[in-house]
Amino acid sequence: MPIVTIQQFPRDVEQKRELAKRITAAFVEVYEAKPESVQVFFSEVESEDWAKGGVMGCDLTSN
Amino acid sequence: MPIVTIQQFPRDVEQKRELAKRITAAFVEVYEAKPESVQVFFSEVESEDWAKGGVMGCDLTSN
Amino acid sequence: MPIVTIQQFPRDVEQKRELAKRITAAFVEVYEAKPESVQVFFSEVESEDWAKGGVMGCDLTSN
Amino acid sequence: MPIVTIQQFPRDVEQKRELAKRITAAFVEVYEAKPESVQVFFSEVESEDWAKGGVMGCDLTSN
Amino acid sequence: MPIVTIQQFPRDVEQKRELAKRITAAFVEVYEAKPESVQVFFSEVESEDWAKGGVMGCDLTSN
Amino acid sequence: MPIVTIQQFPRDVEQKRELAKRITAAFVEVYEAKPESVQVFFSEVESEDWAKGGVMGCDLTSN
Repeated sequence: MPIVTIQQFPRDVEQKRELAKRITAAFVEVYEAKPESVQVFFSEVESEDWAKGGVMGCDLTSN
Repeated sequence: MPIVTIQQFPRDVEQKRELAKRITAAFVEVYEAKPESVQVFFSEVESEDWAKGGVMGCDLTSN
Repeated sequence: MPIVTIQQFPRDVEQKRELAKRITAAFVEVYEAKPESVQVFFSEVESEDWAKGGVMGCDLTSN
Repeated sequence: MPIVTIQQFPRDVEQKRELAKRITAAFVEVYEAKPESVQVFFSEVESEDWAKGGVMGCDLTSN
Repeated sequence: MPIVTIQQFPRDVEQKRELAKRITAAFVEVYEAKPESVQVFFSEVESEDWAKGGVMGCDLTSN
Repeated sequence: MPIVTIQQFPRDVEQKRELAKRITAAFVEVYEAKPESVQVFFSEVESEDWAKGGVMGCDLTSN
């Protein structure tokens, strides 16, 4: 703990690596958490598995 | 918000599209939520990743 | 299964009852699911436990 | 209910089958739950979708 | 990792303590996981925040 | 989307405000996400609802 779960569209590993580094740093700085206590999970969602305003992501013309 | 996450067996996109439309309408009608505030996530689960009564989905004879 | 988890601001039980009824009906009609297979969980979030655009809900002037 | 969601690295189905059996038995013995009320979901995470201490799983030399 | 999240009706701490012990033991025995890598979260749900078959838990005559 | 859910011990709102601000900034900088697309949920866990290594948080002598 803390456990961070991120629901997002797929991203390449370079972006996830950088994001996980910054999020972990935020917990260390703001909560004085130990870095190794912070776990980040990326739960990637395809546009066929997500809707906003009742419209599927894969049916949106722009995102 | 509201954020709706649905754990289910895989379905084709036509069914998910229709379901997302009806769920979003329910929030608009019952909660008077703005449609664009409603997000629906489908988290699809294979029968090898789910158990009921201690029996894996892939081992069930009927479902 | 299906399991539906809803992250939302607190609502009174009358609204949640009506919403659960409509969501369950949607699964029965669209997926031909058995009603008793559908479970709905309401996970209510206070405005001090949610942020949008980096601003806490409790700091927003309008919602 | 109870609904059990397990975030883990991928495992073969024999291990998941045995784990689901033991977890379900624990609910039956400790809570006196009916076996068929217990559902277990395995949410498997690749090493590119998880970080600990700000380091991605795929970048760790040992695990 | 593994991270175990349990959605359940409220239980006293003695039952949760015993359940967490057994679930952790199952991961150690079946997966050969290190005990300290296993975290268990109890997410307790009131009967006003859960529905089955479109009926709220608080409206069910028996459970 | 992205939706960020944080399982953590209770913290005061000043700390959550600062953390949400930094996490949102990380998504804007690394993913070029629009700030208003980022939602952060804090799911706070009492020490009677969490175990590590099979030991409940409320039974740990140090944390």
